[in-house]
Amino acid sequence: MATIPDDLLHLLTDPNYGALATVRPDGTPQVEPMWFLYESKSHTIRFTHTIKRAKFRNLQTNPGMALCILDPEDPYRFLEVRGRLVEAIPDPEGSFYPVLGERYGNPDTPVPPDKADRVILVMSIDHVVQK
Amino acid sequence: MATIPDDLLHLLTDPNYGALATVRPDGTPQVEPMWFLYESKSHTIRFTHTIKRAKFRNLQTNPGMALCILDPEDPYRFLEVRGRLVEAIPDPEGSFYPVLGERYGNPDTPVPPDKADRVILVMSIDHVVQK
Repeated sequence: MATIPDDLLHLLTDPNYGALATVRPDGTPQVEPMWFLYESKSHTIRFTHTIKRAKFRNLQTNPGMALCILDPEDPYRFLEVRGRLVEAIPDPEGSFYPVLGERYGNPDTPVPPDKADRVILVMSIDHVVQK
Repeated sequence: MATIPDDLLHLLTDPNYGALATVRPDGTPQVEPMWFLYESKSHTIRFTHTIKRAKFRNLQTNPGMALCILDPEDPYRFLEVRGRLVEAIPDPEGSFYPVLGERYGNPDTPVPPDKADRVILVMSIDHVVQK
């Protein structure tokens, strides 16, 4: 388990977008912006996703995940968190989606149309790179 | 070769930061913010880097690269470009660094202290994902 430096913790707790990298079955990287929630108690990062999309399939063959968050106040500072998928919690009511929607500024975010396929991806925090 | 959609081309031509993902020798992903320059003539993306850093070592074992650029005006739009390292051009005078520095807002960017180790990473544009 790796600790988040105090002076960069706000990058995880503020509603910043993260760029989440995974590895495709052919061994090449994929990266996309994602909403996320840092859970201090379990020291994990959670995402909403669906079992039908590429990133979920990538994680079935390679659980490695890396998340990069740029400091919106200072482009020379960033946090890279590396870890792995430790759990994919079924979320068939899509209830985590509006939780993240509210965190990212819209308290009226509805549950998504693909709620039946929704999962909560739980990422461990194994290594932290800061700059 | 993949074409950049006209309505998202500005994400590459404006001085946005990109999150560049590569794959480490142990098969796990790495992702970091990078300056970049899109070269329309050769349809490639160029980065300044050094031969001493992890990303360069990653690319020696796995040339796969994926670059994600979020639209600063609309967080629901982004561009993901996937490709591979097609060339690492030695840049022992570090001359590409101030070129990028100027693109990103500082016309007085000096050459970096590690100029002797600098290379220009040239990434192909093989696949484009938009949203």
